[in-house]
Amino acid sequence: MEAVMADAATIEAPARRGRVRPARREGAAKALGVPYIVRGIPTYDVLSEENLQKIERAADRILAEVGIEFRDDPAALDHWKRAGAKVEGLLVRFEPGMLREIVSSAPAEFTQHARNPANNVRIGGDKVVFSPAYGSPFVMDLDKGRRYGTLEDFRNFIKLAQSSPWLHHSGGTICEPVDIPVNKRHLDMVYSHIKYSDRPFMGSITAEERAEDSIDMARILFGTDFVDRNCVILGNVNVNSPLVWDGTMTRSLRTYARANQAAVIVPFILGGAMGPVTNAGAIAQSFAETLAGCALTQLERKGAPVIFGNFLSSMSLRSGSPTFGTPEPAIGSMVVGQLARRLKLPLRCAGNFSNSKLPDGQAMQEGLMSMLSAVHCGANFILHSAGFLDGLLSMSYEKFVMDADLCGALHSYLAGVTVDDNTLAMDAFLQVGPGSHFLGCDHTMRNYQTAFWDAALSDNEPFEKWSQEGGSTDMATRANRQWKKTLAEYEAPPLDAAVEEALLDYMDRKKAAMADAWY
Amino acid sequence: MEAVMADAATIEAPARRGRVRPARREGAAKALGVPYIVRGIPTYDVLSEENLQKIERAADRILAEVGIEFRDDPAALDHWKRAGAKVEGLLVRFEPGMLREIVSSAPAEFTQHARNPANNVRIGGDKVVFSPAYGSPFVMDLDKGRRYGTLEDFRNFIKLAQSSPWLHHSGGTICEPVDIPVNKRHLDMVYSHIKYSDRPFMGSITAEERAEDSIDMARILFGTDFVDRNCVILGNVNVNSPLVWDGTMTRSLRTYARANQAAVIVPFILGGAMGPVTNAGAIAQSFAETLAGCALTQLERKGAPVIFGNFLSSMSLRSGSPTFGTPEPAIGSMVVGQLARRLKLPLRCAGNFSNSKLPDGQAMQEGLMSMLSAVHCGANFILHSAGFLDGLLSMSYEKFVMDADLCGALHSYLAGVTVDDNTLAMDAFLQVGPGSHFLGCDHTMRNYQTAFWDAALSDNEPFEKWSQEGGSTDMATRANRQWKKTLAEYEAPPLDAAVEEALLDYMDRKKAAMADAWY
Repeated sequence: MEAVMADAATIEAPARRGRVRPARREGAAKALGVPYIVRGIPTYDVLSEENLQKIERAADRILAEVGIEFRDDPAALDHWKRAGAKVEGLLVRFEPGMLREIVSSAPAEFTQHARNPANNVRIGGDKVVFSPAYGSPFVMDLDKGRRYGTLEDFRNFIKLAQSSPWLHHSGGTICEPVDIPVNKRHLDMVYSHIKYSDRPFMGSITAEERAEDSIDMARILFGTDFVDRNCVILGNVNVNSPLVWDGTMTRSLRTYARANQAAVIVPFILGGAMGPVTNAGAIAQSFAETLAGCALTQLERKGAPVIFGNFLSSMSLRSGSPTFGTPEPAIGSMVVGQLARRLKLPLRCAGNFSNSKLPDGQAMQEGLMSMLSAVHCGANFILHSAGFLDGLLSMSYEKFVMDADLCGALHSYLAGVTVDDNTLAMDAFLQVGPGSHFLGCDHTMRNYQTAFWDAALSDNEPFEKWSQEGGSTDMATRANRQWKKTLAEYEAPPLDAAVEEALLDYMDRKKAAMADAWY
Repeated sequence: MEAVMADAATIEAPARRGRVRPARREGAAKALGVPYIVRGIPTYDVLSEENLQKIERAADRILAEVGIEFRDDPAALDHWKRAGAKVEGLLVRFEPGMLREIVSSAPAEFTQHARNPANNVRIGGDKVVFSPAYGSPFVMDLDKGRRYGTLEDFRNFIKLAQSSPWLHHSGGTICEPVDIPVNKRHLDMVYSHIKYSDRPFMGSITAEERAEDSIDMARILFGTDFVDRNCVILGNVNVNSPLVWDGTMTRSLRTYARANQAAVIVPFILGGAMGPVTNAGAIAQSFAETLAGCALTQLERKGAPVIFGNFLSSMSLRSGSPTFGTPEPAIGSMVVGQLARRLKLPLRCAGNFSNSKLPDGQAMQEGLMSMLSAVHCGANFILHSAGFLDGLLSMSYEKFVMDADLCGALHSYLAGVTVDDNTLAMDAFLQVGPGSHFLGCDHTMRNYQTAFWDAALSDNEPFEKWSQEGGSTDMATRANRQWKKTLAEYEAPPLDAAVEEALLDYMDRKKAAMADAWY
């Protein structure tokens, strides 16, 4: 193979439909990245039409007979009254079909703009966008173990994401910058996404005014008119399962919708605690809760983009601990995917989940079980694509780069099997014939550069070379070297000085106007 | 959850269709094992009808225009002549459709009998059978590292497989017992499978007389007439890709077929070396080679069971090393599954492949990528389900138990999502309502025991408990403890003394009749 490899530096054009081809060489990898994936394989539909309808009918009954509470947000209740829902106190009940009708005004697919237009992502349809994990208070690495996240960690993860050709999005609260006051850290987070990445990003949702601030900063970057007409920021809002929407969340989702920005509507259902212990019921509940949240965005602003989200999880019935990357949520997510497509809404599902406290076999097995379910179920926006450990309590530096490498493999996986005269290789069979080898044949020479995904962190050397020259490393050790090297080599994408100044000025004014709050 | 867990010892009935439910507790696990899985989810079909036909036509052209060499087996050439193939020297060419017609006499599904009838497996249709990895010269564990396998290791792996409720088959050459002469070790291997396991097993294929010996020993166990009428032993034979069948392999496959036993027909195509570097061509070649092998079994004995096998692999184009558990073979296997179903033949595909030299993140990520492709593509007999590391050069004690635990998770995964009044849980929603929890509700009490897979080797404790009480272990360390515990607790299933004596006598006579050979 040596001769074949000698001139492997040629760069291919970026992805075409069903032909997303990762790079052969480190240098080429970034150039071969694509702004988002266009699937070359169909979704994996595991449930029959009859059973899908049963789940939809169960969701209809939950919405009509049990209802959902909307707390601390009179404007949301007003929306529901005007739309014809039954509102009694905080409890809202919905006639079958009503919410489906309301969400039909939301776009099936939309563009989220990046400050570098080459990094704009399409969300919906047959598109797939990988975004880092979100929301951990802790960070960990093999050198220093677990500790609270800081703004420096937050920026490090933005830099690692920006440096990976296999992630498409800068994410949101990659980790909590715990060294910054709670009421001010959203300003630093949004600024850091804009400063250290030129990819799309997410804003704050922890209070209505923080959501407003996030969108205001996007307006400084993109211009007010542009923001009113285009999606430039996402806000990830959670249902308070079971069947409760808190005012903080509905005010935030309405803030994003009002600004024509996309809320990601996500119930987090830990089966047996926040929902039934059986999958079908948890899915029906998830469907009902998400549908209500999506509909509320449309009542706030008809036609605003919104993402139908899902986060099923299971519980260890020995200890009561949540479990992640287990088979039941993985298979359940496939069903949620089927249901979301029937609504024609973009889907957010699963991610690289794990409850392991180390970037070990458990971490990668659980992560892939969950991540493949997202990829198979047709998820369009995959939050938690990289870094998730410790049941979402910790962002791991090592797992982040391991997961990002896996996201690269999934580019090749999602391309599927291309069938044409070249890939069928009849010329190779006629040239090589029985009993010989294909190493140097014309067909191999023509195709080897783009044939196989080459994982950066997998060791494929023979045992002897691995042990004698490679130091007998495990994947986590190689990942530890990789993230340090990546951070050392990171260069920030250029940012217009006037925009940067305006953002810093906005932050200064906002921070000066508030006393620090730590809760 | 404590109260809920107090009486969790109830044992469920074994699997019903689509309701394979793993155990909650260690003691219950074995009782909850099933002899084989019946899929509750459909296969994942990634390629269109049009593209499937293109691959089939390419395979037809390979068979008609390039042909396959059959070396050192005149009887095989005679079969092909009589069947109407074009035979020129060793090269055999086939008219389109001819081999499909010949394999139509093979059963779409069959039973392989075990000495304990409760462990009989069905192979084909919607059934899934997990069997250990096969063929490594080395073994490894965290204590002693890598070394050549011995008969003791071989027996240890049989014991570990027998002890796992999540494997269904004892396998074949789980590792090479390198301390036994090459020409005699098949006797010890078959004897050990019979002695230390009461599950189905595989025999030797490395020489025609060793295949005969293996089947003879099965005849001692099951009776000659029974063996002539039923499948009791499998033989895994490899094509010498590209497009060559060696006489050793065809003689062995004919030996199995002649005895009405099932050969597993497997090309091992390392893309770029033994086949084209593009997936579609490698799949067409694999299809052609396997089809020819399957057809030869039917010419030897019409109606003999046979398994359509597949082992796609890729190559690191940087180093020329084979790679395993990579995305292209995973997605390619899904296509092979579609093709095999069109032939109505039982399918063997993929397994828990990895090139890692440790039971680390790489091992489990690559393993699951490959294993899920087997599960999704509809594989009926999944060889290499447990233990595979180091590019098949080593059986790992730790990975064996980690993979076996993963096989347990796949029992739950393959059950899919059950949709009925109980799982839809409407009573739970009506009882719990918005904002409360499901921990103690009637529905949870009724269902928690069977709701979620509980992984034996995953740590789901909170970080503090994991680090303070659990010793901050990784999965491999927990696996190291697990296999030692399992071996210490192993008890051999009872074996009829007369049968054992007859087997030992057969071995003694065979061994006495040959000088030791070490190659």
